[in-house]
Amino acid sequence: MISDELKTLIHLLSRLPGLGPRSGKRIALHLLQNRATTLTALAESLHVAGVKVKDCTICGNLDSQNPCSLCQDSRRDTSVICVVESVADLWALERSASFKGHYHVLGGVLSALDGIGPEELRFSSLFQRCQQGSVYEIILALNATVEGQTTSHYLTEHLKELGIAHISSLARGVPVGGELDYLDEGTLSAALLSRRVV
Amino acid sequence: MISDELKTLIHLLSRLPGLGPRSGKRIALHLLQNRATTLTALAESLHVAGVKVKDCTICGNLDSQNPCSLCQDSRRDTSVICVVESVADLWALERSASFKGHYHVLGGVLSALDGIGPEELRFSSLFQRCQQGSVYEIILALNATVEGQTTSHYLTEHLKELGIAHISSLARGVPVGGELDYLDEGTLSAALLSRRVV
Repeated sequence: MISDELKTLIHLLSRLPGLGPRSGKRIALHLLQNRATTLTALAESLHVAGVKVKDCTICGNLDSQNPCSLCQDSRRDTSVICVVESVADLWALERSASFKGHYHVLGGVLSALDGIGPEELRFSSLFQRCQQGSVYEIILALNATVEGQTTSHYLTEHLKELGIAHISSLARGVPVGGELDYLDEGTLSAALLSRRVV
Repeated sequence: MISDELKTLIHLLSRLPGLGPRSGKRIALHLLQNRATTLTALAESLHVAGVKVKDCTICGNLDSQNPCSLCQDSRRDTSVICVVESVADLWALERSASFKGHYHVLGGVLSALDGIGPEELRFSSLFQRCQQGSVYEIILALNATVEGQTTSHYLTEHLKELGIAHISSLARGVPVGGELDYLDEGTLSAALLSRRVV
């Protein structure tokens, strides 16, 4: 009943993160019913982005220039590197506008279950950057998950061997606007442990 | 910070039905991080679907052939036309596999608020099909919303004028598997009114 071209489109759309068969169908129909404004523009934009946007060879950020605009920005502090799991995390930190150093995107975290070891991630290029001598501090801004913490641990060991004296991780505590009643025990005990003198 | 090509892609994705800025970003990153398997395939599929899939000139269904496979199917009953709002509704009815007549997709419903009048919808082609004489029954399978019902009413008036004797609409009642406690009053009173002798 549904033609093959349409089936392929629905199948591809429904495999995107957060979408399923039903939303895939809905989006495919929307695209075909508003061709001029959506379908053609999206196909063109996908093509352009696929050709122009590349991984930055230094930090792993996605940008149309290589090295990326962040790595090329001379106003940023080259002595601090903030290590993040994904480009989305880099964007989140940039939105906070509270970090003016450089980044390094790992492209994932160590995961024995998914078969992701140190070779699958951008570890060696991070170590190379550290060996160039100008790096004073590494901030490990990885997610507070088991895999994120394992990766932090692994990186800390290796970075110490390379002679990086200042290795830090993001503070754990009560999020801004957070209510204690809704927080898990782990966060609360971390917040208590790292309590600050007022 | 985010390059223009990427911004355009995120903007276009986030305007698709059911998506927002956050899911748009997530999907854009997923596409760029899995280029070979997703981005190229999706761009290609969008292009192919945009070129090949067309509106059927008879019923308004989306298909790669025109007239569509449903209109061309000689096993289907040409004397019954089921009028639906959208292609998604046509697919839903086809999934139920309980209708073997022809369809007519209106492409929307009358809505004074959105400025959609009879000229914006596939009304005239429906009336033309009815005037060809072979149509015995019209089933108005429009959504049970205010706009859907207004459209049903409008169509009924005009179809009667064209001499169509048998005009029906879908039955209202308790959905299969439905629990009375969770049903709204309108559905319950409709189910009571149309009660059947056991």
